Amino acid sequence: MRQQTAFIPTMREMPADAEAVSHQLLVKGGFIRQLSAGVYSFLPLGRRVLRNVERIVREEMERTGAQEVLLPAMQPADLWRESGRYDVYGPELVRLRDRGDREIVLGPTHEEVITQLVGQEISTYRKLPVTLFQIQTKFRDERRPRFGLLRCREFVMKDAYSFAADWESLDAAYRAMYDAYHRIFARCGLAFRAVEADAGAIGGEGGTHEFMAIAASGEDDVVTCSHCDYAANMEKAVGRGTNASLKASADKADAAESVPDAEKFHTPNLRSIEDLVAGLGIGGNELIKTLIYMADGSPVAVLVRGDRSLNETKVKNALNAVELELADSETVLEITGAATGFAGPVSLRIPLLVDLEVAAMRSGVAGANETDFHVRHVVPGRDFTLEKAGDYRNAEEGEACPNCEAGSLRVIRGIEIGHVFKLGTKYSEKLNARFTDAAGVSHPFIMGCYGIGVTRLLSAVIEQRHDENGMLWPAELAPFQVHIIPVSHQDEAQMEAANELYEQLREGGIEALLDDRGERLGVKLKDADLIGIPIRIVIGKGIAEGQVEWKERGSGEPAVRMALADAGEAVRNKLKNR
Amino acid sequence: MRQQTAFIPTMREMPADAEAVSHQLLVKGGFIRQLSAGVYSFLPLGRRVLRNVERIVREEMERTGAQEVLLPAMQPADLWRESGRYDVYGPELVRLRDRGDREIVLGPTHEEVITQLVGQEISTYRKLPVTLFQIQTKFRDERRPRFGLLRCREFVMKDAYSFAADWESLDAAYRAMYDAYHRIFARCGLAFRAVEADAGAIGGEGGTHEFMAIAASGEDDVVTCSHCDYAANMEKAVGRGTNASLKASADKADAAESVPDAEKFHTPNLRSIEDLVAGLGIGGNELIKTLIYMADGSPVAVLVRGDRSLNETKVKNALNAVELELADSETVLEITGAATGFAGPVSLRIPLLVDLEVAAMRSGVAGANETDFHVRHVVPGRDFTLEKAGDYRNAEEGEACPNCEAGSLRVIRGIEIGHVFKLGTKYSEKLNARFTDAAGVSHPFIMGCYGIGVTRLLSAVIEQRHDENGMLWPAELAPFQVHIIPVSHQDEAQMEAANELYEQLREGGIEALLDDRGERLGVKLKDADLIGIPIRIVIGKGIAEGQVEWKERGSGEPAVRMALADAGEAVRNKLKNR
Repeated sequence: MRQQTAFIPTMREMPADAEAVSHQLLVKGGFIRQLSAGVYSFLPLGRRVLRNVERIVREEMERTGAQEVLLPAMQPADLWRESGRYDVYGPELVRLRDRGDREIVLGPTHEEVITQLVGQEISTYRKLPVTLFQIQTKFRDERRPRFGLLRCREFVMKDAYSFAADWESLDAAYRAMYDAYHRIFARCGLAFRAVEADAGAIGGEGGTHEFMAIAASGEDDVVTCSHCDYAANMEKAVGRGTNASLKASADKADAAESVPDAEKFHTPNLRSIEDLVAGLGIGGNELIKTLIYMADGSPVAVLVRGDRSLNETKVKNALNAVELELADSETVLEITGAATGFAGPVSLRIPLLVDLEVAAMRSGVAGANETDFHVRHVVPGRDFTLEKAGDYRNAEEGEACPNCEAGSLRVIRGIEIGHVFKLGTKYSEKLNARFTDAAGVSHPFIMGCYGIGVTRLLSAVIEQRHDENGMLWPAELAPFQVHIIPVSHQDEAQMEAANELYEQLREGGIEALLDDRGERLGVKLKDADLIGIPIRIVIGKGIAEGQVEWKERGSGEPAVRMALADAGEAVRNKLKNR
Repeated sequence: MRQQTAFIPTMREMPADAEAVSHQLLVKGGFIRQLSAGVYSFLPLGRRVLRNVERIVREEMERTGAQEVLLPAMQPADLWRESGRYDVYGPELVRLRDRGDREIVLGPTHEEVITQLVGQEISTYRKLPVTLFQIQTKFRDERRPRFGLLRCREFVMKDAYSFAADWESLDAAYRAMYDAYHRIFARCGLAFRAVEADAGAIGGEGGTHEFMAIAASGEDDVVTCSHCDYAANMEKAVGRGTNASLKASADKADAAESVPDAEKFHTPNLRSIEDLVAGLGIGGNELIKTLIYMADGSPVAVLVRGDRSLNETKVKNALNAVELELADSETVLEITGAATGFAGPVSLRIPLLVDLEVAAMRSGVAGANETDFHVRHVVPGRDFTLEKAGDYRNAEEGEACPNCEAGSLRVIRGIEIGHVFKLGTKYSEKLNARFTDAAGVSHPFIMGCYGIGVTRLLSAVIEQRHDENGMLWPAELAPFQVHIIPVSHQDEAQMEAANELYEQLREGGIEALLDDRGERLGVKLKDADLIGIPIRIVIGKGIAEGQVEWKERGSGEPAVRMALADAGEAVRNKLKNR
């Protein structure tokens, strides 16, 4: 493509409203433009990268034997009512009414449509297993769309769905996708981790992994082990506590009997954990934090240690709740009889979800359910029930790994670029999608679902691959593999050489970007750095001796001189080895 | 792909609810399934054909230098208000509100988005001309979605938009698209005509052509000449009348003075043209039909000859009206003072749109604006004004061609598969999208827009290319080029040969469909005819002598025997010559 007439509106300044570096560079480099919050147009460079991602995804999907389909964005709301997701999904689900006043949703995913389709068309185990995939536009009305392509309201996803007759077959389909995802993200040049994940609102039984691109700017916490290959997202990660608290737990059984009776004491204005730690001169690990939540309208109390943070997803899953929110101060007063900050487990008449670490405490200080009072010598199991003890907190940096003896946990940031779920029969049962086995017995399909954020991948790659001058595209994704830059567009010899190389590459199936603009060299090189095409060939005065300059973007190597006659061959060799 | 595990749910019976043969075959052959009215899922075979169409379209677009983009489906309603289309588009425009209660439309086309985008990013003539295209999902809430992919509510379009600094440059961009469309439709194996068209609601100045696939099942009338290359759609086509009426017109000037005064006479119960022709014993061409319409809320009368039919698009364009509908009987009574069927032009105090053929009549019979009365000896120009004379009727079979002396018009049916429009400055003026010329003067962009119904093409191809047994895909579009059919999946020699050929083709980059199902040969061949893959290789008992059977779908030629060893080479030769 010739740059003079190419629609590549690069900018001189960083766009002011973009926070994430990938967002800044995609806009500055003329790859995307915002139409409205979370809704983007892909300009020619962005579209070319997107096509490359689509090609890689398609190739690796087909390599697993998955078959491509294309499902509609507009879906009948009734189908979503059947699956039960119409109410669960909340305001993120884009809803509308058609001219016949029928309710329609714009698909954020396609479990319902594909389950109904396969349920109608496949009736026997002999046609199983089958995995279907599509690369398609999704809609999700995010509360806070941001970071450019990282969190959009309209975006392209690859979603795949597997249908199997038994769990072993699901395992095989899941594994095939898991492996394909590794190949896809590797070809995209990403540093990533597959982490154990929580199944979340999409539900389902069995395993689920998220694929996380490692990036400081990521919105997700990933918990990894310093020693073994344990990796989980924050909703799933389990900490084993620090060595000190493990020790305390071990001592507990011996020591519990020696704790005096619980005793109320006056703590005026000590509402927060920080107030209590400062005011009482004790550690946060000696405090029992009691949080009152409303779970689908009913109150529950969740207890975590004072120095820990609660994980709402874990609580939601334990309660099988759709909505979970902190109770307001009025509700807290009604339930505990005290102002917020003085709730405690003793004599509280609502369900108590006790974090395992609290359950392991010898004794602690808790709220007294009376404003300005706390209770000391509170013994878990003696002074309140441990019936609903479980893991309700976030794992933290430095905790012991749940998977090995030697490691401790580290928390790093990541961008979710893919997920693989074992759905089991969640959707096939609800939508009555069944097949008949060899014995003539009917069963619901055993399903898996597998997603990749195709547009989001562009941002994830740039978050990892950029420098202070611009983007660093791997050859497989780059909008063009080669950038040909004559120093002066008015120099006939330079332009002739540039055109010759351009045509030669094109004949070999390699489309280059040829900078034929009437710009100064400085402007051209700045744009070239920004756009980040991997191979750059500058044609200057050296062309009098048949010489050009070869530079690889981001290699750190200086430019090398090369005969124009060799440049085409050098490009082919370089791209062969990518 | 191996058919046993391929998701190709063919049906034994024709689907009962499908009218068009393309709809029947696409469903029966397992290419598509309906999700809701006018909304379809593409199954693997359908998706493969769709990808082939996309590839052809993309290749031919890029060959013209057009650059690919991807624009959002969700568009701010305010942008549509700026262009003035928000109100004009009516209920076909899918509208919704997001969680912030902002009004959103789902794009049926993208003039607004692309004009705003280019207006923001291109400021100088030096970056012009530029043509941008996308292959993207569109939404249109059709009142009567039907005929499968021919009229959908969600469908894939290729839309392109050109931006130029002057009209010559627009002409060149238009011509490039016009030529590309010819190549695209030819590669799709279609018989088609480019016809002059009416610009319709999308508006704009200058030329516009529709590309029509010739098909008896088409919903559009195409008017062509028996002699010259004149072709126009019904909204645009102009008839020159039959020779008889032309003669009458020529005689008129001489004869007008001899017509007696207009005279009212009693015509009880003669309301319709048929009633009058029968009751009065005169020809329809001697009657003046007066139709009362409401155009954007104001009444108008349109006069056409009794034996002609009115074309509402022509009337709308003449009035520059958004909405046009026949007045109800109450309104007719109020305006004419008579029941429906007795309206006439004499003394009528609303605008009169007089068709040229009526204007050319010596005299005629018209309604008297009094129930049960008509008027005879009504002379156009004498008894009512011809100020708004124009072409308001449909051209008809057998009329003289407006373009040549020798030909007469024929009306054939077509399916609109593409259109090319010169938009001029319609959108760039409304959205204030401007560039600066070499002299520093600001102008609105001069635009063109160019559409192809990508999903609709599948149906158009099948409407033309099928026989009583199924579809007849051209090799470039076929879901697979080769269908390998072992007679018995239990015969080891046959299966081994089939697998060998399958792998050999795959290595050469040709993906075949291998029917490894445990079905009877009859079922396999029936499905093969239905699916319509162009080359079929049946492997039966002849394999003992290394022989297979080669048959080309739809060629009419009998199967020929061939050495298995030669089959791969024969496939490559055949596909090379496609």
